[in-house]
Amino acid sequence: MAKTLEFWFDFASSYSYLSAMRVEKEAADRGVDVVWKPFLLGPIFAKQGWTSSPFVIYPAKGRYMVQDIKRLADLRGLPFVLPKEAPARSMLANRIGLAVLDYEWGVCLCKAIFQAEFGEGLDIADEAVLGALIKQAGQEPATIFEKALSADNKQKLKEQTAEAETLGIFGAPAFITPEKELFWGDDRLDQALDLIAGDR
Amino acid sequence: MAKTLEFWFDFASSYSYLSAMRVEKEAADRGVDVVWKPFLLGPIFAKQGWTSSPFVIYPAKGRYMVQDIKRLADLRGLPFVLPKEAPARSMLANRIGLAVLDYEWGVCLCKAIFQAEFGEGLDIADEAVLGALIKQAGQEPATIFEKALSADNKQKLKEQTAEAETLGIFGAPAFITPEKELFWGDDRLDQALDLIAGDR
Repeated sequence: MAKTLEFWFDFASSYSYLSAMRVEKEAADRGVDVVWKPFLLGPIFAKQGWTSSPFVIYPAKGRYMVQDIKRLADLRGLPFVLPKEAPARSMLANRIGLAVLDYEWGVCLCKAIFQAEFGEGLDIADEAVLGALIKQAGQEPATIFEKALSADNKQKLKEQTAEAETLGIFGAPAFITPEKELFWGDDRLDQALDLIAGDR
Repeated sequence: MAKTLEFWFDFASSYSYLSAMRVEKEAADRGVDVVWKPFLLGPIFAKQGWTSSPFVIYPAKGRYMVQDIKRLADLRGLPFVLPKEAPARSMLANRIGLAVLDYEWGVCLCKAIFQAEFGEGLDIADEAVLGALIKQAGQEPATIFEKALSADNKQKLKEQTAEAETLGIFGAPAFITPEKELFWGDDRLDQALDLIAGDR
């Protein structure tokens, strides 16, 4: 069976930033390929009765999350700035992510979006922010926006979100092995990769 | 400053089992002392609007928790059996834990309670189960129950729970450093210990 890890994320997810910044390297070190799978946390949270992020609904958890990610980011030499608008309205970014992952440079743009959001604290709901990142990736923003906002792409993101739910995903980041085993959270990335690589 | 880790737990907490089984060794390896601090998750969950465990309220999360702990327990060579009554009504066990941690053998009994619950799937709400464990620890159950159910001990557990909330604790296990820094979850035990030991 192919040694492939599915990396499921929503650009609004702060812990997904931690994984996005290291999943490629960790996977490559073990000879595993990564498939990036954006999906919408909103509908999945809504089914759990949440109208916002759990970090907003449960303030003690929200305060802890910032402290926890800051500590982990420090250990990894990563910048971390929680954007003023957190969680970000990530629909457009998720649509763009899905649209560009067809291309070789798509992963690079996805990482740039996460980096702008949580490394610099920019608001990824802002079209100007996303447009600038697309340009930096050497692409034409108008073309990418058009593809991202096409009926086909919107539908595909809905379907991918439904697939996430079917897989048992209830938060992000989530990792799925070729045998459809679910691992949740940046904390479980190494364990999922070890399983796929056959190192355990 | 003393190199001491506070290990905050509720006997109902499945992830606390994972930490209880390794905290002593991990701490000793780094020259850190451990202070065991039982508290009541119930009142803290109630303030978050939960009338039960999040693993009951959010079934997808509950199913994942069992799978996740099973995998971790396997990696660590630990048995894991989710009790039929999960989460257990842990009030009596928590009161006993608090009462016996004054004694040198207290930690050993606390570990035996966790082991009976999550290693064998026994119901720790059952006085007979707890009585047998107390006997196995070489103690007289009647004496321990009396101490556990004393007004003083009940009050002390309430105060310890209030202290947990003040420390920002919103789930278990939680770890507190001498500088009152909070780490949440078995995943963060090593990080908390490294910080205290000065190894990072």
